[in-house]
This record gives sequence, structure tokens and C-alpha cells, in this order.
Amino acid sequence: MIKARIVVTLKTGVLDPQGKAIQGALGHLGFAGVGAVRQGKVFDIEVDASDEATARAQLTEMCDKLLANTVIENYTVEIA
Amino acid sequence: MIKARIVVTLKTGVLDPQGKAIQGALGHLGFAGVGAVRQGKVFDIEVDASDEATARAQLTEMCDKLLANTVIENYTVEIA
Repeated sequence: MIKARIVVTLKTGVLDPQGKAIQGALGHLGFAGVGAVRQGKVFDIEVDASDEATARAQLTEMCDKLLANTVIENYTVEIA
Repeated sequence: MIKARIVVTLKTGVLDPQGKAIQGALGHLGFAGVGAVRQGKVFDIEVDASDEATARAQLTEMCDKLLANTVIENYTVEIA
């Protein structure tokens, strides 16, 4: 089993109301000097692949098909 | 401005129905050999701090107070 971490983040320029809400909430909690906050998703996945390259190809396909909306999101695949 | 990434993941042993659903969906899409899937959250935050140690302390406090539920979640703070 190869362990991987996929991080999905919004592309630059895409509005992130959830991030804005968190930024506001941090301000209300007394944290001064908080700049931009952007929220994303992380997936820790175990893949049964023979080698790292195969796993990476499979994980990239998973992102394109299910895990990320490539119109508005970027993703990175890190093999642990 | 110091840029940081906070990753919040469920603690081991905490059930993750969302991860299970993704695991099932990947199977239905034809991906064989997918093991455990766990979903978490990622926050990209800019903090106006004088140095890295101050930023890290502030970000840790943010996690404890707002960003993570420390009863069921772990978090990591990475300064970019």
C-alpha cells in the first residue's frame, strides 16, 4: 500500500466565502493582522500500486474524475 | 506577511463517513485497490507577525480556538 496525500485548493481569483468567514471570525476572536484565509480539502489515500509512478498516475486520475473540480480548483499529489 | 498552511485531520480511530463514501465512489468509478480514505481540511493563512516563532504561536492558538476540534482532530502548522 502506498500512502498519499492530495491537497485540493481553490484557484487564485476564485472567491472563497468560507475563507472570508474564517478571516472574520479570527478577527472577532482578537487575532489582529490576519491576512487572506483560503480553505481547501485534504485527502489521505492508500493505493495498492506496484510503484510510485503508477500510484501517482492513478491518484491524478482520481483527482480529475472525482476529488477536484478542475475548473475552479488546483490539486497536488504527494506520495508519503 | 508570513504565509502558513494548516492541515486538520481526524484522529486515528475517529470514524470518517465522508472518507468512506469517497472510497466507495472511487471503487464504483473503477479504481481498484483503493485502501483507506480520510478527508481533512487545509487552511492557507497569511499572518502579520514579526518572526516565524510568533506566527507559529499565533497559528497554534487559532487552531485550538477555532480551526480544529481538538477532541477529534489533529493539526499541523507549516510555515511556507
